[in-house]
Amino acid sequence: MSKYAFGVDIGGTTVKLGFFDKEGNILDKWEIPTILDNEGAAILPDIVKSIRGKMEEKGISEEDLVGIGVGVPGTVDKKGNLGGCANIAWRSFNIPEAVQAYINVPVKAGNDANVAAFGEMWKGAGKGHENVVAVTLGTGVGGGIIVEGEILAGSIGGGGEIGHIHVEDNETESCGCGKKGCLEEYASATGIARLARRRLEKDDKPSVLRGGHISAKTVFDAVKEGDAVAIEVAEEFGRYLGKGLGIIAGVVNPELFVIGGGVSKAGEILLTFVEPWFKKYVYRECANARIVLAQLGNDAGIIGAVGMVLR
Amino acid sequence: MSKYAFGVDIGGTTVKLGFFDKEGNILDKWEIPTILDNEGAAILPDIVKSIRGKMEEKGISEEDLVGIGVGVPGTVDKKGNLGGCANIAWRSFNIPEAVQAYINVPVKAGNDANVAAFGEMWKGAGKGHENVVAVTLGTGVGGGIIVEGEILAGSIGGGGEIGHIHVEDNETESCGCGKKGCLEEYASATGIARLARRRLEKDDKPSVLRGGHISAKTVFDAVKEGDAVAIEVAEEFGRYLGKGLGIIAGVVNPELFVIGGGVSKAGEILLTFVEPWFKKYVYRECANARIVLAQLGNDAGIIGAVGMVLR
Repeated sequence: MSKYAFGVDIGGTTVKLGFFDKEGNILDKWEIPTILDNEGAAILPDIVKSIRGKMEEKGISEEDLVGIGVGVPGTVDKKGNLGGCANIAWRSFNIPEAVQAYINVPVKAGNDANVAAFGEMWKGAGKGHENVVAVTLGTGVGGGIIVEGEILAGSIGGGGEIGHIHVEDNETESCGCGKKGCLEEYASATGIARLARRRLEKDDKPSVLRGGHISAKTVFDAVKEGDAVAIEVAEEFGRYLGKGLGIIAGVVNPELFVIGGGVSKAGEILLTFVEPWFKKYVYRECANARIVLAQLGNDAGIIGAVGMVLR
Repeated sequence: MSKYAFGVDIGGTTVKLGFFDKEGNILDKWEIPTILDNEGAAILPDIVKSIRGKMEEKGISEEDLVGIGVGVPGTVDKKGNLGGCANIAWRSFNIPEAVQAYINVPVKAGNDANVAAFGEMWKGAGKGHENVVAVTLGTGVGGGIIVEGEILAGSIGGGGEIGHIHVEDNETESCGCGKKGCLEEYASATGIARLARRRLEKDDKPSVLRGGHISAKTVFDAVKEGDAVAIEVAEEFGRYLGKGLGIIAGVVNPELFVIGGGVSKAGEILLTFVEPWFKKYVYRECANARIVLAQLGNDAGIIGAVGMVLR
């Protein structure tokens, strides 16, 4: 009887792997390096080799596996077809079929942000909810949308690409994507640092931020100390993110927004800057969504990945 | 064997009804008035009475019916629970159960805009596609989102309420919903007329629109005559709608936007004002969506309604 499953979260530097029982409890987890050479040709063989090593260690065979779930940093459609991939020079191919060339078990694949959202819905902050939007505030802004308990992959895997929805008409600097005024330019870690630098340049108002290293962390640390300039920056961040969440709520009407990623380490105080703006911008018939912090941290990817085969 | 089904589209003035074979072909269609008295207590009994009359006329019994699909002008969740209802003073109740109190056949219910979107996906402009966003440009702006062939109802039926996503920070007039800067304020029939009046007030540039009745129709008629002021208004409309669609594409990544409602009677020329702005605002990984005109007109509601039980 199939009792176990693996969850895999492929990143540009490391691959996270998890060994799970069929209820989705983590029995073991580890990492291997992502070898980017030769258009990433070694990545999938390396993953399966690592999984086979773990199977040998645990004394289990393919028959004991429910399957393998894989999260990938690129657009992945409902059938596991990879479109673009930002950090790995992979061309388009079907991920489950490619993995199954090395191991004969059921395989499912999804975009990493979507898969992490699925993990938070299944085992994290979204537990008990089926309509959840996860927002990852890291170097960039990622997102994953869960509708009726399923990942919204979209037509070509672009579902939940909320970092690049337009929220500001008057932006002069370009986002990494080439457009101007994307949510990512204000709500990511780099975006918050940019807002802070802009604010500091505006006048000479005293602030603990002056002269030091500016990051999302130093901004929110200063907010906690009551620094007035930092609070202004946090308000600005909150206005953009609240606006973005208000728009997203009008489209997909979730029960819950789950905020994760490095920026969310600031804690609950972060949400106090977002909620009032969300309420201002959201349509009343979609205003039921609550905004909470993610709970799974870096494990969201492997948990969501394994969830695709276990749930 | 069940061979037939009914589709019902409840509006604030009339109820549209359709009698269909099980492939979804319209065999007959008609309307009855919507009686709003007594908190709309007569509406559902009237509908079932009308359906029973048609069944008698056609010589069929309940066993011959696959079921009845119902579209309602209010928020309806996945299970057919009605939340708010704008034009009818209905309280919250479960629509399928309420209909089944009068007739013992399978019943499904959805929000009217969502149901019409489902109809366009099934039998109209979206035929052959499973990820479709329908946008209805009428007195207001409605929307319906179809993901993997299913209506995205959202957590409390607010999915696809795209008329009230925020697209303009500098608006001074309020939308009907109480907020400022909603898509509906620029892309609805009334919104286009408002943009036209604003533009005409700005200066004295000659235009055929001056002195006459201003409506979305007169604006687009003037556009077709090459009126420079009307073209400016259409550009403004196109910028807002293109921005809105670009944002929506970043959230749900559809293959197709289907544009319907009274404003869409302007024809293909309407799309030429929207497409360039859509391309400007949309994230590249979601830019695959095409924008087309709806095909089912006023029948989209009954076709989508019956599709919920037939498809």
